[in-house]
Amino acid sequence: MTENSAASARHASERTKVFLDESEIPTHWYNIVADLPTPPAPHLHPGTREPMTADDMAALFAPGLIEQELSTERWIEIPEAVQEIYRLWRPSPLHRARRLEEALGTTARMYYKYEGESPVGSHKTNSAVPQVYFNKNAGRTRLTTETGAGQWGAALAFASQVFGLTCEIFQVRNTYENKPYRSLLMRTFGAQVQPSPSMNTAAGRDLNARFPGTSGSLGMAISEAVELALQDPNASYALGSVLNHVALHQTVIGQEAIRQFAGFGESLPDHLFACAGGGSNLAGIAFPFIRENLEGRAHVDVVACEPAAAPSMTQGEFRYDFGDVSGTTPLMKMYTLGNEFVPDPVHAGGLRYHGMAPLVSHCYHEGLVRAVAIKQREAFEAGVLFARAEGIVRASESTHAIAGALRQARAAAEDGTSPVILIGVSGSGQLDLPAYAEFLSGDMLDT
Amino acid sequence: MTENSAASARHASERTKVFLDESEIPTHWYNIVADLPTPPAPHLHPGTREPMTADDMAALFAPGLIEQELSTERWIEIPEAVQEIYRLWRPSPLHRARRLEEALGTTARMYYKYEGESPVGSHKTNSAVPQVYFNKNAGRTRLTTETGAGQWGAALAFASQVFGLTCEIFQVRNTYENKPYRSLLMRTFGAQVQPSPSMNTAAGRDLNARFPGTSGSLGMAISEAVELALQDPNASYALGSVLNHVALHQTVIGQEAIRQFAGFGESLPDHLFACAGGGSNLAGIAFPFIRENLEGRAHVDVVACEPAAAPSMTQGEFRYDFGDVSGTTPLMKMYTLGNEFVPDPVHAGGLRYHGMAPLVSHCYHEGLVRAVAIKQREAFEAGVLFARAEGIVRASESTHAIAGALRQARAAAEDGTSPVILIGVSGSGQLDLPAYAEFLSGDMLDT
Repeated sequence: MTENSAASARHASERTKVFLDESEIPTHWYNIVADLPTPPAPHLHPGTREPMTADDMAALFAPGLIEQELSTERWIEIPEAVQEIYRLWRPSPLHRARRLEEALGTTARMYYKYEGESPVGSHKTNSAVPQVYFNKNAGRTRLTTETGAGQWGAALAFASQVFGLTCEIFQVRNTYENKPYRSLLMRTFGAQVQPSPSMNTAAGRDLNARFPGTSGSLGMAISEAVELALQDPNASYALGSVLNHVALHQTVIGQEAIRQFAGFGESLPDHLFACAGGGSNLAGIAFPFIRENLEGRAHVDVVACEPAAAPSMTQGEFRYDFGDVSGTTPLMKMYTLGNEFVPDPVHAGGLRYHGMAPLVSHCYHEGLVRAVAIKQREAFEAGVLFARAEGIVRASESTHAIAGALRQARAAAEDGTSPVILIGVSGSGQLDLPAYAEFLSGDMLDT
Repeated sequence: MTENSAASARHASERTKVFLDESEIPTHWYNIVADLPTPPAPHLHPGTREPMTADDMAALFAPGLIEQELSTERWIEIPEAVQEIYRLWRPSPLHRARRLEEALGTTARMYYKYEGESPVGSHKTNSAVPQVYFNKNAGRTRLTTETGAGQWGAALAFASQVFGLTCEIFQVRNTYENKPYRSLLMRTFGAQVQPSPSMNTAAGRDLNARFPGTSGSLGMAISEAVELALQDPNASYALGSVLNHVALHQTVIGQEAIRQFAGFGESLPDHLFACAGGGSNLAGIAFPFIRENLEGRAHVDVVACEPAAAPSMTQGEFRYDFGDVSGTTPLMKMYTLGNEFVPDPVHAGGLRYHGMAPLVSHCYHEGLVRAVAIKQREAFEAGVLFARAEGIVRASESTHAIAGALRQARAAAEDGTSPVILIGVSGSGQLDLPAYAEFLSGDMLDT
C-alpha cells in the first residue's frame, strides 16, 4: 500500500530499540528464592518474634499474595486476567542509547529498559495489577496504600479501577504538595488521596504530634494505610515495594530484557544499573539476570543506585526492623537506617525509604548485588543529559540509575574498554518537571 | 533463558496491539497533492495576491521545506538523519481498544493509533525533527515559533536541541498560565519560552492594546514569532500545523497504521476519527487512508473532530485568509472563522485556531473528509471513560477524537452493526491533568 516505505531489514546491531511480540510477554514471574545459594531470613511476627505464617498475614493481605510471599517455587504462573491487562502496555521496549553514547564520547554500548510507557508512567503497574486481582479474588472490596512519589498510588488507582475496588491512598506530604499532578492522576482513576501524616488515623495523629511539621515519609504513610486496613475485614493493605511478592511481580522486566538483548545480537550486559528505594524496581530488572549469573551463563555486575539522602545499603545495618514508623508491619531482615529515619525531602520521593527489600538486602549481603549512593544534583545532571540526548525526561528516581551508569561509561571512555551497560529506567518524569526546573535554575540542594 | 515464559503465538485477531519492526518505519512522506482529483488553491502573496513562489517564502522558511510546501510529487524521501531520530520512538503502536469496547457494550471493533510515546508526548515531533533538520542544512541557527497547548513548542525545543539550534517560543498566554509543566519541558530541552501576546514584539504590543487582558490565541502567537524571524537572516520561523509540509511530515502516522491493521488480520477501518485544530494531526493519520479511498482499495469514512469553541469547518467560510491575527503570513484558501477570531479559552489549547489547514480544507470541500464539532465536556467525559478503560490519560485535544468515535460506537451498539473504528490519539494528557480535575469536579464550562 505504501510501496516506497519498505526498507531492507536492519541488522540487529544497528537497531535503536527492540520490542517483543505480545506472545513473548512472560507468562510466569521468577522467584529468586528458589535459586539463592543461602535461604533468606524469614519475616518475623512483631509480637512473638517467630517466623510469620500465612495465618499471621491474613489480616493484611489476600491469600494468593501471601502464598507468593512465602513461596520457594521458581516460577509462578501469571493469571490470564493479569496477562490481559499487562498487554495494554507490555512488552516494554529495550533501547540502545546511541545518542547518549555519542554525547558521552564513551566506548561503552549503552541500553535502557523503559517502563515509563505503562498506563501511569512507571513500573509500578506490574505489581498493582496482580495485587488488586488477587484481592478481588479473595472478595476484598477496598484497598489502602501509601505512596511516595505517587507512581505507586497512581498504579494502584488504575488497577483498582480495572477490577472495581475502591482505593484509598496516603501520599507522603512532601510529594503531595510538590507533585500535585500525581494526585490528580490518582483521582482521574477514581481513587481517594490524602497527604500523610494525616489527622484521620491514630497513627497519623501520633506522628504529627511526634514530628511537628514533618514532610512525611513512606514509613509514616505505611503506618496509616495499615491501620485502616486492619479495621475493616473487607479491606486489604497493598504495598508498592519491599515485600517478596512485589519484587516477584516486577521480574517481568528483567525476563523481557534478557530476550531483547538477543534481538540486538548482543550477549548479556556487563553492568546493570537500577535505582533502589524499597527495592522492587531493582529486583524486577536484576533478579532474572542474577539467575543467569548463578547458573553460570553470564557475569552481570548488578549495581543498586540509592539516594545519598536514604542510603540504606551503603550506610545502614543489616538487621531485623519494621517496615513502617509505627512498628505495625512484620519484622523484616534488611539493610535499614532505622524505622524512625526521615530522609531529607529530596525530589526522588520514591526512594525516600529507611529500609531495603529483604530479598535485595539478602543479595547485597551475599555479594550478588553492589550499591552506590548518589546525590540528587548528580542524578538530575544525568537526567538532563539523558533527556537532551534520548528525548525523554525520566522520573527523578530513575535519574539515579542513569547517574550510576554514566560513571561507568565515563570510566570506560578513559580505559578504552567497551562494556555493555544496561540501565533500568523505571518511569517517566513528565510529572517531575518542577524538579528539573529547580535543577536547571541552580537552586537544587545537593543532598 | 526464561523457559516458562514462552507462549504460543497469539492469533492476529486476539492481539491487543501491533508494533512494527524499525525496518518498517516509513522511508517516505506521502504528499496527497499528487492524488487529489482537483488541485488545491495556491497560497497567495499577501501584497500582490499572486501565487506565492519559493522566493517569496525564503525569508521565513528553509529551502528544503519550501520545496515540500510546493511539491506535487507523491512520495518525498525522509532524510536518513531524520529517520535516525524517528527511530527513538517510532513506529508508534496500534492498539485494539478491547476494554473500551466492553465498557461501551459496543459491537464495533475499536482501534487507536497512539502518538503519545514520542519524546515530548505527542505527534508534533514528527514535523519538528525534519523542520529543524532542513533549517540546519540551510545554515539557520535560530528558530522562532508559536505554541498552543505546548505540545508543538516542546517538540521544537527537543528537535532544536538535537540539531544544535536555538529555539524561541511564544506560548498562548492561556496555556502558559494553565499548563505550566509544558513550558518547564521546553526549558528542560534548552528553549526560551514567553507568554503571548508579549510586550517584546511590535505585534505583541499592538495585540495587547487591541485586545486588553486577552488570553491569547495561536494566531496572535504566530504574528509574534513571524516578526522575530523576519528581522534576522539567521532565523527561520517554524509552524506546528496548517502548512502543506507540516501535514506531509505527519503522514508517517497513517502509513504505519495501514500496515498495522494487517497485523490484526483486519481490513482497513470503516471510520477514522482524529482531532483537528490546525489540521496536521488529522492530515497525518488520514491522508494515507484517503489515498486508499481514492485508489478504490478502501471506503474509510474520515471524520475531523473540531472543538465547538473553534468550529472552522462546521461553522466557517471557505475563502482566502491569513494564518495569523496581524496578517503577516501568506493568504491561504481555508475554512476560517476570520483571522481575528479568538476562541474561548478551552482546555484543548492545541485546537484553538481560527482556520483549517488548506489541504484538509480542500479535502473537506471535496467531500473526502467530514467534520463534527464537539463541546469540551463531552470530550473530557470521553477522555475519562477512555483513561479508565485503556489506562492512559489522553491529551485534551485527542479527547475530541475519542468523543467522536464514541458517538459512532454507541450508534453501532444500537444498530447491531460491527464497524471497524480507528481513533487517532495525538498525544498524552499527563500534563493536562488539571483540566481532568476540573472536569471531574463538575466545574468545567461546556463550551
